[in-house]
Amino acid sequence: MTNHRGHLYGIGVGPGDPELLTLKALRLLKASPVVAYFVAKGKKGNAFGIIETHLEDGQIRLPLVYPVTTEALEPPLSYEAVIADFYDTAAVVIGEHLNAGRDVAVVCEGDPLFYGSYMYLHDRLSADFSVEVVPGVCSMLGGAAVLGTPLVYRNQSLSILSGVMTEDELRRKLADTDAAVIMKLGRNFDKVRRVLDELGLTGRARYVERATMSNQRIVPLEDVDPMASPYFSLLIVPGQKWQG
Amino acid sequence: MTNHRGHLYGIGVGPGDPELLTLKALRLLKASPVVAYFVAKGKKGNAFGIIETHLEDGQIRLPLVYPVTTEALEPPLSYEAVIADFYDTAAVVIGEHLNAGRDVAVVCEGDPLFYGSYMYLHDRLSADFSVEVVPGVCSMLGGAAVLGTPLVYRNQSLSILSGVMTEDELRRKLADTDAAVIMKLGRNFDKVRRVLDELGLTGRARYVERATMSNQRIVPLEDVDPMASPYFSLLIVPGQKWQG
Repeated sequence: MTNHRGHLYGIGVGPGDPELLTLKALRLLKASPVVAYFVAKGKKGNAFGIIETHLEDGQIRLPLVYPVTTEALEPPLSYEAVIADFYDTAAVVIGEHLNAGRDVAVVCEGDPLFYGSYMYLHDRLSADFSVEVVPGVCSMLGGAAVLGTPLVYRNQSLSILSGVMTEDELRRKLADTDAAVIMKLGRNFDKVRRVLDELGLTGRARYVERATMSNQRIVPLEDVDPMASPYFSLLIVPGQKWQG
Repeated sequence: MTNHRGHLYGIGVGPGDPELLTLKALRLLKASPVVAYFVAKGKKGNAFGIIETHLEDGQIRLPLVYPVTTEALEPPLSYEAVIADFYDTAAVVIGEHLNAGRDVAVVCEGDPLFYGSYMYLHDRLSADFSVEVVPGVCSMLGGAAVLGTPLVYRNQSLSILSGVMTEDELRRKLADTDAAVIMKLGRNFDKVRRVLDELGLTGRARYVERATMSNQRIVPLEDVDPMASPYFSLLIVPGQKWQG
């Protein structure tokens, strides 16, 4: 019986290439008796795949399996309620490990606080436990690197937008920024493409699927199949070159 | 005499904590015969300080010394012209190493393509040489991590803004985003603070100086001395919590 409580680590493991793990992430992962990771039913989990080879047999693997694979649920179910239950339960399970004195590392693709699922555990646990976040290389920086395109020069502004926005909102925000990254394309690709065309931004835009992952694909915008754009795709509208 | 040309690596070394270096950055740094870094006159260079302990005696250190420390120059000098000359010359020097068959690693704080000086070399050299960019943890993610604050939830938008913007522009952009990161505060702090107050965002805003560096300071917004806010400070207005 210990009266020492464990520490919670929210660890960003980078966009996909296992070499984009930081030294700090690696050290804490190796030292954590419990390693938790988010995963879709029947899948292995991208974040887990990135770090798996660094784990030893004695470490507890704690998969946090998403209860749904779509946000479109039939009433009386609502995505919000189902997913809130899921995070509540995950927080309880992790809290039990922490109370038993075991450190828990929650791994997240990219960065934990930049659209990472870890943040929902952070909000539930950080008031009661010692928590530390290890930032990671996020997907948009991985995307810019493999595309070889500077994102923003000097004092330019950058807007990070989601493809789920309405067409009006996308148009307004894209018209009022120097550079943009658009995530969550998927079935929103056609709409995004239309707005880029309208604003004359298509020529500057670059597209990549699964940047830095082993199955990365860089596709010219005109060749993207709008019905087959995966979740892990992103579109970058770089800032205009500044001749520095 | 070799007919093999060297490779250019643009390497992000993270926001300050030397442990936030990636495994890939470390491998390429150790393998590069030439390591170049940007530095102000008479200074050591933050990026160089982060990686210095990993270098061996035989590696060539190539400081790229900024010719000016301010953008406000007396005519006939202009910052644009002076800095363009500087990057032109630096590109020539690096090109000579590459032509001689030596790989060159240019290290950059944070990420090389996200406001990094490396991008001005990239634009000058990537057409003629083999170039690879290694993304790094950028300062805003380091800032969110040490503040322990999720940046953006779910489908929220994030605007990355510069304190040098006019008050009108800042107000308009801040009013039309879910979350924001404001960089380049320094002497712009008072102006930014005024806009946050007007928009009722002050309560949500968090401030940090030199996030993840050894001299990091987290200061409540009301205690920031607007005359002493350093260049490496940033202000985060996190998205509203989504109860996931």
